[in-house]
Amino acid sequence: MERVYANQLNESMLGKDVEVAGWVEDVRELGAINFIIVRDVSGGVQVVVEPSMLVSNGIKVTRQSSIKVRGRVQRSRSVNYPFEIRAESLHTYSIAKHPLPIDPTGRVSASLDARLDARALDLRNPRVAAIFKLRHNTLQIIRRFLVEKGFIEVNTPKIIGSASEGGANLFKFSYFNNRQAYLAQSPQLYKEQLTLALDRVFEIASYYRAEKSHTTRHLNEFVSVDIEAAYMDADDVMGIAEELIHNLIRELKSKCSKELSLVGSDIDVPTLPFPKVTYTQAVEMLKKEYNMSIEVGDDLSDHALRLLGERMKSFYFIVDWPTALKPFYIYERDDDPRFSYSFDLQYGALELASGGKRQHDASRLRKRLVEQGLNPEEFRDHLKVFEWGMPPHAGWGLGLDRLMMVICNVKNVREVVLYPRDTERLSP
Amino acid sequence: MERVYANQLNESMLGKDVEVAGWVEDVRELGAINFIIVRDVSGGVQVVVEPSMLVSNGIKVTRQSSIKVRGRVQRSRSVNYPFEIRAESLHTYSIAKHPLPIDPTGRVSASLDARLDARALDLRNPRVAAIFKLRHNTLQIIRRFLVEKGFIEVNTPKIIGSASEGGANLFKFSYFNNRQAYLAQSPQLYKEQLTLALDRVFEIASYYRAEKSHTTRHLNEFVSVDIEAAYMDADDVMGIAEELIHNLIRELKSKCSKELSLVGSDIDVPTLPFPKVTYTQAVEMLKKEYNMSIEVGDDLSDHALRLLGERMKSFYFIVDWPTALKPFYIYERDDDPRFSYSFDLQYGALELASGGKRQHDASRLRKRLVEQGLNPEEFRDHLKVFEWGMPPHAGWGLGLDRLMMVICNVKNVREVVLYPRDTERLSP
Repeated sequence: MERVYANQLNESMLGKDVEVAGWVEDVRELGAINFIIVRDVSGGVQVVVEPSMLVSNGIKVTRQSSIKVRGRVQRSRSVNYPFEIRAESLHTYSIAKHPLPIDPTGRVSASLDARLDARALDLRNPRVAAIFKLRHNTLQIIRRFLVEKGFIEVNTPKIIGSASEGGANLFKFSYFNNRQAYLAQSPQLYKEQLTLALDRVFEIASYYRAEKSHTTRHLNEFVSVDIEAAYMDADDVMGIAEELIHNLIRELKSKCSKELSLVGSDIDVPTLPFPKVTYTQAVEMLKKEYNMSIEVGDDLSDHALRLLGERMKSFYFIVDWPTALKPFYIYERDDDPRFSYSFDLQYGALELASGGKRQHDASRLRKRLVEQGLNPEEFRDHLKVFEWGMPPHAGWGLGLDRLMMVICNVKNVREVVLYPRDTERLSP
Repeated sequence: MERVYANQLNESMLGKDVEVAGWVEDVRELGAINFIIVRDVSGGVQVVVEPSMLVSNGIKVTRQSSIKVRGRVQRSRSVNYPFEIRAESLHTYSIAKHPLPIDPTGRVSASLDARLDARALDLRNPRVAAIFKLRHNTLQIIRRFLVEKGFIEVNTPKIIGSASEGGANLFKFSYFNNRQAYLAQSPQLYKEQLTLALDRVFEIASYYRAEKSHTTRHLNEFVSVDIEAAYMDADDVMGIAEELIHNLIRELKSKCSKELSLVGSDIDVPTLPFPKVTYTQAVEMLKKEYNMSIEVGDDLSDHALRLLGERMKSFYFIVDWPTALKPFYIYERDDDPRFSYSFDLQYGALELASGGKRQHDASRLRKRLVEQGLNPEEFRDHLKVFEWGMPPHAGWGLGLDRLMMVICNVKNVREVVLYPRDTERLSP
């Protein structure tokens, strides 16, 4: 007999024998007749069982136990379930041992830490599962969008031989032959190199930051969506970012409305184009309208971004950052090299993506490395690529976990990551 | 003016002005009239240029330099290019510095090491680019197939707190608060846990093995396609593996015939189902027909797999391995617990995937850990999940890089990985 999922039960199955498999969410014992709710990844189904079926090898089948039920589909008088299954047999695969660490029905609330300690069980909560179904769909929609735009998916190494972006805060470990290796913080240098021949590339993968931060938006392992495109400039790749997010939200709203409603998200499809504020305009605004003591050249603090975010609310770009505030590979503006063809994509106060046009001239790139206090010799392998006929190029990196925070309307990035890694959390 | 790709030129563009961007693959100077071949990721196009256009700031534009050409499309008398562009302008973005480390046209052959040292340039060779276009398409086709089968894409952590499969050979590093962390060798334990609620999950990601091997089929960083499914058994997931590969090759042959022909692959769509040989049959065959000194219980050596591979040629499964030869999480056969519901998917002598039904009973799993000399206490976080109503489940891990070797008909895994990591190679 073919297994059916709970949400597949319908009118046409009335009177037919089916098999469902999942976990016992609820048991109502009314003497001679008992009802159980069996839930699977798709939803719940009411099952009418004989009392004897709820005992397996002399042990009472508990809530959350894994079972399989075979029986006939009939109409139900329940408000929540139009159909039910009259069980002909019930097989118990494994009995859940009580007390359970958390209640996955969500009736008894639990702290985020308790939930993460019992993440697999936490996922039986339909609201939590909805987050990861949205994440799954987001991944498919993003990839399809980029593939249609001509981007080629690549896999770049996460074990790297030199500190790629010159940053500190890399996890390091010992490689063969007494060499030092690092965990990649981004695919930045590789994706730039690949534009030499592959024109447009993208990668969605895990990256690592050894930063000791205690916030609701930083993790030490995170998933980034990265693109890089030859013969594009900052405006071109901003256009791709905003179109991607616009299409993504539109598709999710039409395809995953149930999941969006479960997680309590009422995100709107943002209108195109997204507003753009230059860095300098932002600084002026913060000085004049919020009396902040900030000058052009200063980085935008969390506080500053919060004020801007309150004003801009939805998605917007902060563009034309000072060159000195951006990594060595950013392209200086032709009209004023103190500023760069760079941008951050924000959602309110939250930074989602960062990108821009890149320097493609080998000698200027070498100069920029020195200006930022980095040693060009350590970037030898990278710099030589720029002498092989490097095209101009631009790209961005988008934090997938943060994007999911926005889509799912949650305040802590740990809600949208299955097994988050932070300063404290290394398991499960 | 909208940029067009070389392979987009067609009859309908005759007489129109277009812009192409790419690199100079070839220059033919015939006095007053010069031809250059401009290549981009899609193909090559012949361009008629004035001699003066081939000088930029007093410097001769070399082969492999990055340029943009605008001009009118006309018919060409060339055998290879039915259309050509008569350049009205030529802009040089960057001059390639000669001598180049390798010749990306492939006319002068280079060692694999020299090519990997200059990988970005190597990718300008259409044959090499074809490998990575096939890899890109393979990724999209595999994901679409699994999504249609109801699998949910997940991202599990690659930084793990305990040596997950109990194996040695993990890269280790220091995490916060003086804790030891490891790089994941597989998502095995996480994907099993996730079947508790998500039913069917898949992940395609990079994994790490600190093994000091020097072969043409092992790397220290590799990409694995992993699936795990509740309420499935070994036969079910073998069915998914063979259907996936069958569909993949069929789709590649129809969609990427140009790339397959460039890499010299004439792979056939394998017929379903794939042949199955039990481990015991394989051992008997090796003893009787090849006079090997091997007994039931021994692992199959490289030599043994080569002999079997010569006989079986294409895709086939070796099933029902001795329980002791498989990891602790494998499910022992009900009729003979010395053997397990396990399989390896082979292509000739090459192991592509490994999988089976998993033990889902907490106490038997604990017993299996002890039998394999592992400490159940180190698997505490994992074992507790099995007390929350764990469903029976099965799955496999498929080496993407090895699958690409088969598809692309190459003998060294380094050919199909952009930036391979092995004992010697940590850069670029």
